Amino acid sequence: MPEYPSKAQPVVIVGSMALDNVRTPAGEVKDALGGAADYASVAASFFTPVKIVGVVGDDFPKAHLDYLKERGVDLAGVEIVPGKTFRWSGFYDFDLNIAHTLETQLNVFAEFKPKLPEDYRHAEYLFLANIDPDLQLDVLSQVTKPKLTVCDTMNFWIEGKLDSLLQVLKKVDIAFLNDAEARQLTGKLSTIKAAKEIQKIGPRTVIIKKGEHGALLFNGDDCFSAPSYPLEEISDPTGAGDSFAGGFVGYVASRGDISARTLRKAVIYGSVMASFNVEDFSLNRMRSLSVADIKKRYNEFRNMALFDALEEAAL
Amino acid sequence: MPEYPSKAQPVVIVGSMALDNVRTPAGEVKDALGGAADYASVAASFFTPVKIVGVVGDDFPKAHLDYLKERGVDLAGVEIVPGKTFRWSGFYDFDLNIAHTLETQLNVFAEFKPKLPEDYRHAEYLFLANIDPDLQLDVLSQVTKPKLTVCDTMNFWIEGKLDSLLQVLKKVDIAFLNDAEARQLTGKLSTIKAAKEIQKIGPRTVIIKKGEHGALLFNGDDCFSAPSYPLEEISDPTGAGDSFAGGFVGYVASRGDISARTLRKAVIYGSVMASFNVEDFSLNRMRSLSVADIKKRYNEFRNMALFDALEEAAL
Repeated sequence: MPEYPSKAQPVVIVGSMALDNVRTPAGEVKDALGGAADYASVAASFFTPVKIVGVVGDDFPKAHLDYLKERGVDLAGVEIVPGKTFRWSGFYDFDLNIAHTLETQLNVFAEFKPKLPEDYRHAEYLFLANIDPDLQLDVLSQVTKPKLTVCDTMNFWIEGKLDSLLQVLKKVDIAFLNDAEARQLTGKLSTIKAAKEIQKIGPRTVIIKKGEHGALLFNGDDCFSAPSYPLEEISDPTGAGDSFAGGFVGYVASRGDISARTLRKAVIYGSVMASFNVEDFSLNRMRSLSVADIKKRYNEFRNMALFDALEEAAL
Repeated sequence: MPEYPSKAQPVVIVGSMALDNVRTPAGEVKDALGGAADYASVAASFFTPVKIVGVVGDDFPKAHLDYLKERGVDLAGVEIVPGKTFRWSGFYDFDLNIAHTLETQLNVFAEFKPKLPEDYRHAEYLFLANIDPDLQLDVLSQVTKPKLTVCDTMNFWIEGKLDSLLQVLKKVDIAFLNDAEARQLTGKLSTIKAAKEIQKIGPRTVIIKKGEHGALLFNGDDCFSAPSYPLEEISDPTGAGDSFAGGFVGYVASRGDISARTLRKAVIYGSVMASFNVEDFSLNRMRSLSVADIKKRYNEFRNMALFDALEEAAL
């Protein structure tokens, strides 16, 4: 079981738990642990205690649940129901930025109605991974005194449930979107304009994920541009965005502090977790990852991004 | 005439001087000052004295030459020959990353044989903007004691004159490429692998331009990831890469120092100049730009990219 700083607060993470079949130029896996909530929870679990909310079928391997337990993840919010677990099959070609879906079987996830156990309701940190915005709204109504609420979403909900998604955005403190989703949601081509439009809808903070190109944090009037981390090998990009969000929210909850400086660091920790995650299939890289590895890569990010202040005397 | 720091050394810039017709969603210009050497020279001229080498026809407006003179650019290396100046016509759609060429008229540029005036040959800083690599080689043979040689190139030469381009890369200290060109040249999909392959060909330093996503500097074993600068309005991306390279080499020459820290700062100054350049058509933004504007934006880049070191006590 991981150990956490004394100030670390638990984070509730709600979303999909899945079995994935994934093929990339680096190989393939079948029935692998996947789903946004699993990726986010494992990434967050390196920083702070996690309470997961999700549903799986009775085919979900015990080994996957055992791994989550080993990471200290509270499984009281996981429903195990008769039927088959949510399954995603897909592949990536040499352009690893584009996921090609072969098949999505919602299975038991089609009837998912997240129900927070009593002690989850009082958690201060909540991450709503990418699910139906109506479910995200339902979860928001179940928490009693959140200090920080964070949501992710995707193009599917922008196209199909825009009104509900806008309701979610009105209520959360932080929204994650990738750059294409931010443009689609707002009709603005400039990333900065799109982010500002989304801030006007509700969230004080908008985080634009740009995959291999890093991320932008718009926090009130402040803008932080997180560096890209050039990786030599990418085995499987699945879950990169979820690991990013999980690392982000896990770090913030571990500090019990939502200052601008903490949010900037959290974006880097999120980037660190995403950069590790893509080095192997499914959550496999996380299995051997240590806190020392995370610290080392954080320092690499910092060294990569440093440059001196200008000399006042001259250019 | 600009004033320069006492250590500032002149930089020789060789490349195309052009008249452009450009249309973008923000508007259009005709017969506008363009060409890689013009963009790079004007950007560099904010930092250090520039000696340009190029050719124009007798139709080239005197006002354009006067503007270069006003920027302190030495025009002794500009040939004015009977005939028409190199012309490029193109447009950009809402994806401003992609230039669509309507017409390229080489005109007098087809017979360009760069010939460096005697005092140019002794310059320590040389920037070979994107031209035929055979011409770049010819220029390299004309300089007597360069301290730093820098080249740019494009996909056209990777496809059509690979052997000559490889000769250039063997001889220069620093090569600029965009990410697609680096992949095309090396057959490596990973940017970091591509950059390392190019370093093996010759240049100690490889700078990967990523447009709106910033830039990567591979300098020996050191990697620097320069932040993207999110712009609210982009009027015309033409010349962004040339302004970036010009700002880079101009700053380095102004310091008379090629240390790793100076190169990192130079990448930021390059990014600053590119970010200004795209705010208006042609070189129009440069006409009102001040050193104070450059310093201000440098500081904005720095504030955008800062994040704290990790706490050693805990994550």
